Amino acid sequence: MADSPDYLVCAVLPAGGCGERTGMKTPKQYCQVLSRPLVAYTLQAFERVPWIKHIVITIHNDYKDLLLDVISTHNLKKIHIVGAGPTRHRSIWEGIKSLGKVCPVPEVVIIHDAVRPFVESDILWKIVEAARECGAAGAIRPLVSTILAVDGDGFLDHSLDRSKYRASEMPQAFQYNIIKTAYEKCTDYDFDYGTECLHLAQRYGGAKVRLIDGPDSLWKVTLKKDLAAAEDTIKDWKKNVVLVNCPEKIQSEVSRAFELQNFKLHITTYGAMGPSSANHYIIFHTIYNQQSILQMSKDFLNNYAGTAVVTTVLHVVTTCQLGPEDLDYFKVQACIQRLQENVADDVCVALLFDMTDSPKKLIELLLTLVRSQNPILGGQIYTILADS
Amino acid sequence: MADSPDYLVCAVLPAGGCGERTGMKTPKQYCQVLSRPLVAYTLQAFERVPWIKHIVITIHNDYKDLLLDVISTHNLKKIHIVGAGPTRHRSIWEGIKSLGKVCPVPEVVIIHDAVRPFVESDILWKIVEAARECGAAGAIRPLVSTILAVDGDGFLDHSLDRSKYRASEMPQAFQYNIIKTAYEKCTDYDFDYGTECLHLAQRYGGAKVRLIDGPDSLWKVTLKKDLAAAEDTIKDWKKNVVLVNCPEKIQSEVSRAFELQNFKLHITTYGAMGPSSANHYIIFHTIYNQQSILQMSKDFLNNYAGTAVVTTVLHVVTTCQLGPEDLDYFKVQACIQRLQENVADDVCVALLFDMTDSPKKLIELLLTLVRSQNPILGGQIYTILADS
Repeated sequence: MADSPDYLVCAVLPAGGCGERTGMKTPKQYCQVLSRPLVAYTLQAFERVPWIKHIVITIHNDYKDLLLDVISTHNLKKIHIVGAGPTRHRSIWEGIKSLGKVCPVPEVVIIHDAVRPFVESDILWKIVEAARECGAAGAIRPLVSTILAVDGDGFLDHSLDRSKYRASEMPQAFQYNIIKTAYEKCTDYDFDYGTECLHLAQRYGGAKVRLIDGPDSLWKVTLKKDLAAAEDTIKDWKKNVVLVNCPEKIQSEVSRAFELQNFKLHITTYGAMGPSSANHYIIFHTIYNQQSILQMSKDFLNNYAGTAVVTTVLHVVTTCQLGPEDLDYFKVQACIQRLQENVADDVCVALLFDMTDSPKKLIELLLTLVRSQNPILGGQIYTILADS
Repeated sequence: MADSPDYLVCAVLPAGGCGERTGMKTPKQYCQVLSRPLVAYTLQAFERVPWIKHIVITIHNDYKDLLLDVISTHNLKKIHIVGAGPTRHRSIWEGIKSLGKVCPVPEVVIIHDAVRPFVESDILWKIVEAARECGAAGAIRPLVSTILAVDGDGFLDHSLDRSKYRASEMPQAFQYNIIKTAYEKCTDYDFDYGTECLHLAQRYGGAKVRLIDGPDSLWKVTLKKDLAAAEDTIKDWKKNVVLVNCPEKIQSEVSRAFELQNFKLHITTYGAMGPSSANHYIIFHTIYNQQSILQMSKDFLNNYAGTAVVTTVLHVVTTCQLGPEDLDYFKVQACIQRLQENVADDVCVALLFDMTDSPKKLIELLLTLVRSQNPILGGQIYTILADS
């Protein structure tokens, strides 16, 4: 089989940590990233892999309601909640012991951190196959820093040869019997102070441990700043921008600005609305016809909102000189706000007037709204007036 | 002396790297973070330390104009630009050789990465003093991952005892003669494949190398996601919010929402404008008097803008029912836009109307604008209408 196993694979995600290093009150796995707890992304990443049949997450009881809410919001079908132990290894062991109770005993168990949300199926697959063959396997990355051996007085003893060492990351996978034996045989010291499952599998389970290069994306959310990095990574999933009826004289400038920010541009017209992967629609109007714009928005949102793919719908009115008699601000604002409220929670809908000759400011505003992916900035009218 | 040396200290910042791991076209030290190249923050961090007298930055010639622009924009007085070599060690060596030409020969040389912008004077001071005493010193951090020794076939040989090893970070410092001798004696292999200056100082300079625990903030920008983390860190410098004339019935709800996001709240009234450290002003008006709001904004900005401390000025009009006859949208928009254009580049000025009974949506919008610290969202009128 090329890309899915013919044996049972389950996963254990220890999520009992208190995340003290983020400097925030909430443990990092429960911090909100783009309106969802971080752990929701990790659970979704595992839920999406069809050959992982059951996922045990070990948590402190305080967060059970939050987890149940995540499970129901995202319609997750494979998750089993188990109480965490007082240390990482004790939590993992609780998770492993629960296999066979909450689900059948698997042939291979994946262990992964709840705070590494960007794991993908190809690395999971490589690790699982290697574990089945060798007994245990784990993802590694090249060292970012030099590693120094410190003597007892705080002086450098020696620095390690970087070519012989690697950083141990997650995911890891184990034959069920090997990891079970390892935890049955290991000492209290291992349970309380150990960190490396691969070491236990090697020492107590007799496994030959295969190490496999993983991608950069396996990084672990550790500090508060990492939550911003996670948000940026998640926003980068939505890079498809559709320009609808973009006036020819500004099209190349608009396109270039988005492409410089690594967006993928699609140029289209009113009739044909762009690819199904489209995330951000920017719809240009050279004439301001309030009724028709609002009607178009409504039709558009009826068709596209709620697909969880479209994130931004911006109507841009260009090249017009409007006076107070042309725009009943509060009335139009009410319509835009109602449109915003009627669409899915995570779509930003706005109306922009650009009355300048150069698209420079408009582009800055479009980029800001598209990049922010923040519906709170939607339901508004933005105006760029020519200098007076 | 307790906190500054009575000997000459200079710094060398190698910045010749091409940053290929960020996945972006621009080397990471030149990527924009909140409208400035990353390296500008690092240079400012060194410029601010009064006892560091000269700062040599080694760069590729392509970026000389960008660097000159940073130096003039931020009025930096201590920077000397030197051409980078083909590897990190060769660049550092170019920088060290230039000491004595571009400035006097120092007693202690600091070496620091351009892509570690969050270095502070206390750790620099500890490292410099230790280097003067012992010959060389460097900042270390506990290991984030377990370190694994890999055998020739890609299997785990053994995992290291984390308690005996540390990650080598920056800054590092050296007695000038020791680092000079080290580079004079080291091999071409060291120059081309070595990474650790401390190792060279120990091996060729005969230094006893002191290792000193550094703070989390010494982390290095390596991947694209780290740029978002850097931006978040820089935004966190601006946490002082002043609520001016906040209506009593919403004050506690507004305060709580900001405090939950780790903002520091100051409550004041029109007359007394808050502490000199204030970053974000939110000024409430229960009556909409267009002339007086605009005049107040103008006076306010004349007094506060350009201090590089104030980042957001939001005028909030609450508890009002306005009709089309009360707001000449384009006219007021023109005034707000002009205010925005007249203030410093990095201040966001906006007018918000909240016509709802609950401050919930208003708070979300205020938090979004304050957190974004983005002047492109300024010069606008935001309105939250009651559901109709």
